[in-house]
Amino acid sequence: MRDFSERLKRLPGPDEASAAAAAAREARLTKPPGSLGRLESLAAWLSAWQARHPPKLERVRIAVFAGNHGIVARGVSAYPPEVTVQMVANFRAGGAAVNQLARAMGAELVVTPLALETPTADFTGGPALSEGDLRAALAAGEAAAGAGIDLLCVGEMGIGNTTVAAALAAALFGGSGADWVGRGTGVDEAGLARKAAAVDAALAHHGAALADPLEALHRVGGRELAAIAGAVLRAREMRIPVVLDGFVATAAAAVWAKARPGALDHCLAGHCSAEAGHRGLLARLGLVPLLDLGMRLGEASGAAAAIGILRAAVATHAGMATFEEAGVSDKPQ
Amino acid sequence: MRDFSERLKRLPGPDEASAAAAAAREARLTKPPGSLGRLESLAAWLSAWQARHPPKLERVRIAVFAGNHGIVARGVSAYPPEVTVQMVANFRAGGAAVNQLARAMGAELVVTPLALETPTADFTGGPALSEGDLRAALAAGEAAAGAGIDLLCVGEMGIGNTTVAAALAAALFGGSGADWVGRGTGVDEAGLARKAAAVDAALAHHGAALADPLEALHRVGGRELAAIAGAVLRAREMRIPVVLDGFVATAAAAVWAKARPGALDHCLAGHCSAEAGHRGLLARLGLVPLLDLGMRLGEASGAAAAIGILRAAVATHAGMATFEEAGVSDKPQ
Repeated sequence: MRDFSERLKRLPGPDEASAAAAAAREARLTKPPGSLGRLESLAAWLSAWQARHPPKLERVRIAVFAGNHGIVARGVSAYPPEVTVQMVANFRAGGAAVNQLARAMGAELVVTPLALETPTADFTGGPALSEGDLRAALAAGEAAAGAGIDLLCVGEMGIGNTTVAAALAAALFGGSGADWVGRGTGVDEAGLARKAAAVDAALAHHGAALADPLEALHRVGGRELAAIAGAVLRAREMRIPVVLDGFVATAAAAVWAKARPGALDHCLAGHCSAEAGHRGLLARLGLVPLLDLGMRLGEASGAAAAIGILRAAVATHAGMATFEEAGVSDKPQ
Repeated sequence: MRDFSERLKRLPGPDEASAAAAAAREARLTKPPGSLGRLESLAAWLSAWQARHPPKLERVRIAVFAGNHGIVARGVSAYPPEVTVQMVANFRAGGAAVNQLARAMGAELVVTPLALETPTADFTGGPALSEGDLRAALAAGEAAAGAGIDLLCVGEMGIGNTTVAAALAAALFGGSGADWVGRGTGVDEAGLARKAAAVDAALAHHGAALADPLEALHRVGGRELAAIAGAVLRAREMRIPVVLDGFVATAAAAVWAKARPGALDHCLAGHCSAEAGHRGLLARLGLVPLLDLGMRLGEASGAAAAIGILRAAVATHAGMATFEEAGVSDKPQ
C-alpha cells in the first residue's frame, strides 16, 4: 500500500490566505469579538479547508457506506445481518432517518452498498479483507468525494460494525476489547462480553502486524470503514471539508491520523455518539464534537444533524453587516 | 399583580395523548430503540406542548426584545447605550447575526424595541420599572406569541442587561453579584467588579422585597426581560413550545419557574452561553441545553442556531418508515 503512504506525504494543508480573510472579516462584523463562539471558528475552518473566502455550503453531500461482517457469527449484534441489506433498501426508498435529515438540511444523499452478499472474514482467525477487497472499498469511498462538493458527511450501515470499529480503535490506540466495545444496536451484557472477547481474540491473533494503520484496516476493518477512509483521504486532496459521524466513521478515519499527524485536520466530529468508545476516541484525535445529543444510530445521522450548525456559521459570517455598513459603534466606550 | 398569580395557577399541562402517540410511533420507526437519542425526546416534547401529533414546525418565530438600562451609568458595559438603538436599526436592515440565522433556519423574525429613549431607573437606589412600565413590557411580550406559531424562540438586545440578569438571578436563586456576573460584551476586570458591586448594592437596597419573583422583576429587571417573561407565559397558554436563548432570556423566564414549579416545562434551552452565570442558572432550572458552542451574543442567536436540531427531530419522527412499511426486521435475533 505504498501508494497511500506517498499520498499521505503530499496532503494539502489549510489555505492560510482564506483563513486570514475570514479572520479579517469576522473582526468587522456587528457583534462583540468572539461572541459567536464556535460559529466563528467554523467559518474560518471552512474557509481554510475549502481554500475559499467566503466559504460556501451550496452543495453538501452525505455519503453512507454499507458492509457486512463475518464477525457477526460470534454473536456480537442484536440484529441479524440481513438487516444491512434491508436498511439499504430503506435508504433507497427514502424511509430511513438519514433520508429525512438530508432533506431537512438541504443535503444530497449517496448510498454505496459494498458487496453485502460477501461478508468479510471473521477477523479472529485471519484478515477481514483481502488486499484486493480493501483497495476496492477504498476506491469506492474515494468516488464519493466528487468535484463541486462543498462539504462531505460520512457515515455507515453494517450489522456488526461497532465490534469492527472497536477492534480497529484498539489496534490503533491500544487497550483491550472492554475499553472500546459498547452496546451497538442494543446487545445485552452477554453480547457485550462476546464483543470484547472477539476484539481480544483479534488483537491476540494479529499481534504486532496491527502496528501499521493501513494493515490494521486490512486485518480488522471492514468494507464500509475502508470506504470512509478512502472518502476522507480523497476529500482532503480535493479540498472538501468533512464531517465525521459516530464511532465507526471516526475509527475508520483515525487510520490516517495514526499514519500521519494532522491528516484529519480537514475533518470535524459532527457529534459525540452514545456508543461507549466514541468519546474516548474523539479525545485521542483531539476532535471536539459539535453536538452531544445521545444519538447512536450511525448512517451519518449525527453528522447530518450537525449540518445546521455549519449553515449557521456560514450564514452569519457571509451575511452579517460590518460596523461601518450598519453605523454601529464598534469601539468600547 | 394578582392577575399573573391567577394565570400561573391555570397553566395548561402537556397533552398526554399527543405524547403517547409520539412514543407509540417512535417505537415502530426503522432504528434501534432510543438510537436517535435526544431527537426522540424532542419529538415527544414538541407533541406534548403543541398538543398535536405529529408535531409541526411550519411557522417558527424568533422574537427579539430590546431595552435600555439606567444601570449602565455605573460602568457595567463595554459598549455605550447608544448601541442598543443602533442594533435595532441593524435588525431592521437585516444585517445582524439573528437575521442571517432566521433565514438559514426558515424562521420569521419579530423585533420589538421597548421605550429605548427611556432607560429603566438605576436599580441600586429604587425599582428599575414602575408597575405601569412592567405591565406594558409584559404585554408587549405576550403580543409576540401569536396564533399559528409552532415554536417561539426568545432573545434580547440591551446594553447593560447581563448585569440586570445577574441581579434578577441573584434575587431569585440567592448568591451575591460575583456569583452571577460575567464579561457580557467584554468588560475588563474592573468592569466585572463594577457589575458585581451594582448587583450587591441592588440586593442590599431591595432586600426581602425580592423574595416575590414578579416583584424582583419589577425592582431589578428590565423591559426586554419583562417582555420575554410575558412571551413565555402567553406561549404556554397558547400551547406554543419555547426555545430560550442565553443568560438574559433564561433569567427572565426563571421568574415563572420560581413562582410556580413546572411553569417552564414548555421551554427548552437552545444553548449554554459562555456568559458566566448561564450554566449554573440552567442547572437550577433543570434545563439541559441543546447546544454548547461558546456563543454569548444574545439577540436569540443561540436559540436560533438550535432550530435545526428541532427540525431534525420533527423530520425523523414524522418522515421515517416503520419496520412494517420498510420490511426491516425489528426483532433482535
